[in-house]
This record gives sequence, C-alpha cells and structure tokens, in this order.
Amino acid sequence: MTANLDSAMMRRCLELANQAAGKTAPNPLVGCVIVQDGMVVGEGVHPKAGEPHAEVFALRAAGDRARGATLYVNLEPCSHYGRTPPCADAVIAAGVKRVVVGMIDPNPKVAGSGIAKLQKAGIEVTLGVEEAACQELNEAFVHRIEQRQPFGMLKYAMTLDGKIAARTGHSAWVSSDAARAEVHKLRAGCDAIIVGGNTVRQDNPLLTSRRPDRTPLRVVMTRSLELPSNANLWNTSMAPTLVFTQPDANSALQAKLRSLGVEVIEVKPLTPTIVMKHLYDRGCLSVLWECGGTLAARAIVEGAVQKVFAFIAPKIIGGADAPSPIGNLGLTKMTDAYLLERMRWQMVGPDLLVQGYLLPKE
Amino acid sequence: MTANLDSAMMRRCLELANQAAGKTAPNPLVGCVIVQDGMVVGEGVHPKAGEPHAEVFALRAAGDRARGATLYVNLEPCSHYGRTPPCADAVIAAGVKRVVVGMIDPNPKVAGSGIAKLQKAGIEVTLGVEEAACQELNEAFVHRIEQRQPFGMLKYAMTLDGKIAARTGHSAWVSSDAARAEVHKLRAGCDAIIVGGNTVRQDNPLLTSRRPDRTPLRVVMTRSLELPSNANLWNTSMAPTLVFTQPDANSALQAKLRSLGVEVIEVKPLTPTIVMKHLYDRGCLSVLWECGGTLAARAIVEGAVQKVFAFIAPKIIGGADAPSPIGNLGLTKMTDAYLLERMRWQMVGPDLLVQGYLLPKE
Repeated sequence: MTANLDSAMMRRCLELANQAAGKTAPNPLVGCVIVQDGMVVGEGVHPKAGEPHAEVFALRAAGDRARGATLYVNLEPCSHYGRTPPCADAVIAAGVKRVVVGMIDPNPKVAGSGIAKLQKAGIEVTLGVEEAACQELNEAFVHRIEQRQPFGMLKYAMTLDGKIAARTGHSAWVSSDAARAEVHKLRAGCDAIIVGGNTVRQDNPLLTSRRPDRTPLRVVMTRSLELPSNANLWNTSMAPTLVFTQPDANSALQAKLRSLGVEVIEVKPLTPTIVMKHLYDRGCLSVLWECGGTLAARAIVEGAVQKVFAFIAPKIIGGADAPSPIGNLGLTKMTDAYLLERMRWQMVGPDLLVQGYLLPKE
Repeated sequence: MTANLDSAMMRRCLELANQAAGKTAPNPLVGCVIVQDGMVVGEGVHPKAGEPHAEVFALRAAGDRARGATLYVNLEPCSHYGRTPPCADAVIAAGVKRVVVGMIDPNPKVAGSGIAKLQKAGIEVTLGVEEAACQELNEAFVHRIEQRQPFGMLKYAMTLDGKIAARTGHSAWVSSDAARAEVHKLRAGCDAIIVGGNTVRQDNPLLTSRRPDRTPLRVVMTRSLELPSNANLWNTSMAPTLVFTQPDANSALQAKLRSLGVEVIEVKPLTPTIVMKHLYDRGCLSVLWECGGTLAARAIVEGAVQKVFAFIAPKIIGGADAPSPIGNLGLTKMTDAYLLERMRWQMVGPDLLVQGYLLPKE
C-alpha cells in the first residue's frame, strides 16, 4: 500500500515538474508533493532558474502540516548554496519525517550529499521510486551535466518510403495536422531549435510553438549567410533568433539582422560541435535539430544527436533522388549503421511517431 | 450466447482456412466447422484446387451428427458444378438445420445463389458473422475475382532513415532475423514472388519460404537477361522459377536456363501489367513484389500493388544517394503522394512492421 502510494505520489511529482518543461534551463525539472496522513497537504514546482526550488514551494503550501509528513520529490534535494539556500536544510527545518526521492542529482555539487544530510538529521529516506521515469524526465539535464553538452534531439517527418519531400523539394505537408501539433509540443519542451540555411531558403519556417511563453531560441547555421532578407525568422517579436555564420559572411545582411534584434555570431569553422558548445554555455538543456539531411548527418557524426523522433506518414511519394532525412554519414556497410535503442512507437493522428535513442559510435 | 458461439466458431473456420494459405489458388481459403448441441462434431479445410471443399470434409467428419446441426463456413457454400459438385446440395442432403456464413462468394457463379438455395430448402442462414476478418483472409481471392488481376503486395525493409542499403549497395542485413522469418511466412502465403534483374545480380536471393511445401513461384523480370549463369534462382529443385524477358535477349542463357528447368517467357513490352496478367491466367491469387525501388515504382504506377509491408529497422545508415525503397513515381508535389489506409503496425523482434493498403489513383 505504501509502495503504491509512493509510486502514485512520485508520478504526481513528475506531472508537476513537467509543467515547467522548457522553462527551467539550466536547472532540472522538479516537482514536489507533501503528504500527511494519506492526504496531499502541499505541492510545488520549480518554475525557472533563479526562483525557489519545488520543495520550498511545497513546504510553504503545507505550512505546519509538513511536520511529521512525507515529502516526495523526483530529484534529490540540493545540499549546497546556489542561487537559493539548500533545500535539504529547509526540509529538515520543517520537521518532515520521511523523504521519498526519485533519483540522485548527478550534479557533482549534490551527488548524494543532499540525501546524506537528510539521513544525518534522522529523516527516513527512500530512494529510487519510479526511477526510470524520473531519469527520463530529466534526461536532458543529466546528459548536460555528464557530457557537458546539451541533449540533442533530431526530428523529421518522412513518407513510408523514407522521403522528406518530393523530387522537386515540395514538402508541404508530409505529416498531418496532429503530427505538426506534436512537433509544437516538442518545441515547447526544448531550449533551442537548430535549422540550416537551406531550410530557411526553402521552407521559411516560423519555428514557434503554440505556447508563446514556451518558444525556444531559434538558431540558424549558415556558412554563406546568403539568406532572404525577409525570412520569418528575422521577426524577433515572437521569439529570439540567433544566427551562426562564418567571419565576414554577407556583412550587409549581418547589419540588417542585428538592427532587427537578431543575434549574429561569427565562428570558424562552423560545426555542430561548436554550436552545441555555445548553447551549452548559454545553459541550454535540450536542443532540437529540425534541419535537412545534410546538417542532420553532420550533427549525428559529431555526436550532437542523442534521440530521434521520426514521424512516418501513411503515404508514398517515390523518387530515388527525392530528399532523404539523413545525408551522408560516411558508412559503406549496413552492418556499420548507427543503432537506436529503447524504441517507442505511437500513432499521432494518421501518422506513426517512432522514437529512439541513438547509440554513440565507439 | 449464440452470437458469441457464432463468432468463436467463425474464428475457428478462419484458423482452419488459413492452414491452406498459399496452396489453394485460384480457389479461396475456406474452413468449415459443424456444431451439434454446442459441441464441434466435424471440421474441414479446402486444401487445394481440385480437392473437395471444406464443407465436404466437415460433413464427412460429422457423419450422422450433421443432422439438425449448425454449419459454420467463412465463405458462402457454392451452388454450381465446378471441379466438384455444389456444396449447398451436400449441406441440404446432410440435414443441417442452420448455416452461418462469413461472407458472400464474390464469384459471379455463386454471388448469393448458394445462400438462396439453402434458404429455399428451409435452412436458417445467418450471414456476415466476423465479416471483416473473413473479407481480409480472402482479400486476394476477392481482388482477383473483382479486378481480374492478382492481389499485389510490396514488401521492403528499410532503416529508420528510409534506406534499403548503404550508398555502396551493401544491404545485408537491414532487418533482423525475426523480420526475415516474418518475410518467409509472408512468402509461404503467396503464389508468386517477383524480383527484377538487379536484385538477382546484387543479392542473389533464394526467395524460398521456410516451409518447403509452401514455396511460391519465383518470378524474375529482366529485359536484358544479363544475369549470372549460376544464380541461386536457377536451382529449381527447391521451387519453380519463371523468367520474363524480351524477345531474343541473351539466347545462350535462355537455352541454359531452360535446360535447368527454368521457364523462360519472352514478352514485349515487359511490364508489371503484362506479368500480372500472365500470373492471373495461371491462377495466382497473391503476388509478392520483393524487388528494388525502380521496379517497385513501376508496379505501383501500373496498379499492381494493393498492399504494402514496410519493415523499419532501428538503425540509421545515411546517404542522400543510398538506395530508397520506391523509385520515381512521376510525382512533383507532396500533396499528390499515394495514400495508404487501414494502417497497422507491430513489432517484429527489434523492427517495426507497418502494413497498409495503397489507395489507387483516380
């Protein structure tokens, strides 16, 4: 019975945590629930970096009812002074009797010390409830901490014969309204979206989500900067735009873009690795590659893609030379293919969404 | 209760019928169950053309216990003299009280007259039990009767980025052992398998099923007949092979193939339509296209593909110019794509099998 309650309350923490998806970078998604005599007496979410942690909100909501209660939180309470005081201290001070933790905080500043602090204060700690779900919710945070790189996700939509457009390049639309709505949700949970110059020239995308408060940074990688001066992405009233290009590329357009509020950064060489490093330094947790096959291939080869979202539409367009989702990876044998694991598939309207994690090449 | 029993017994008829999959052409798959006082007293299957129908076997098994019983059969009993006498007469003679039929026989020689005959004899007839499943089991038979063409199925295996081979052409193997075993099952249920010359040259396939009694006719379409003289398909001890080529192509190889027991037919022009017409005349119900993208595209354009089986492997090989499952269909806009309906997906080992019916172009 306790196990069932623990599991249900941890699931509730994850729901709460997820309310802030796309807004917490570089911090993790954390939700907290306080239960007294089987009743929820306080809930909290970490809304964004710089604001209090989820435990603080939940303790505030619970007030005196936190004394002797059980506190559930999907990530280990912090034990160090950051922008806010340590949560472990607040939990101890409130007289909480038991703490149920989903997973250890991989941040080397925490890494078990929060739990140790609680235990030292005589609090009973249960660790690892719904751990797989907790790990998945914060997979981008964990990856960023461990790999010092944002978590890269590649999304594409293709026909059942593996094409992202007709031979002519015409692609509106491969996937259904329902799939495109799902892409908007995906974007809302990310911190940055990357496209290449070709996508800007051919599709002139907006790259917005349907939630104005959750539109991530829109990033363009373009060596030449030979782009239309009136692209949708240059309208920064909806969301910020950041252009990476090579030194001295199209100075006239650079000046115009800056006057429109677009940030332009010159780097050489312009590679996925350098862009990801820059986005890491900005605190991005997760980055969505929504580019064409050539840039997607470079991102994969450079280890900038951890997860793939492939929407597969129930249609056939044909054409050996019609655009494919992934360009040349330099592989000559099928046995050398990149493998995916932990595959999932679901229907999204008439389309199939296949998700999986790309195994790195040794 | 009767409805549940009817449904369960009709499902049993379909199981029985399916035991003869791949062996009955040009006849349908039919199973029959006779139930007396809630007990099965006889079962039958139509094993192959020229042998008695399922009802006859079931009536023989039931003997006197057929009197007053209920007879279940997935396809309307025949009412005409073909290679065997009408089943409807045998059912009447046996004193069956009630007949439950899955679907009307689309054969114009039957088309409801079997049921009419039973009703005229005072037998209670229930029509349409598990009709969708009955229609699906005999979809090839129905298509052949109605369209005067075999039912065409296209099978391919591709990576999650839509490739059937690496850029070099290397393709062993895209899909898993489990998926290849599923392909063998698919073959065992077909009457012919078609490949093009490129597949023979590149893959040198056997095209057998794992059931020696169920290996369909292996068909090669090759204009040039410029094929290796020692291809696996020329060994006709495992299964028959039929080669379609153009008049006077490679006479030396033609002579050699004929000496090996390979049938060679010269036609001009050599098109999917002409090959399908020939296979129709031979009585084939279902034909499996296991060819490369170029021939697959021609088969689709000519309306020779009704159903698609796409195995999708959890791997990424990359390459804009790596081989794709479907060649040029002459389509320039995504909105003109061929659509599939009644999609299904299932895991087959680590791979995903997506099935759907191709909607014909108006």
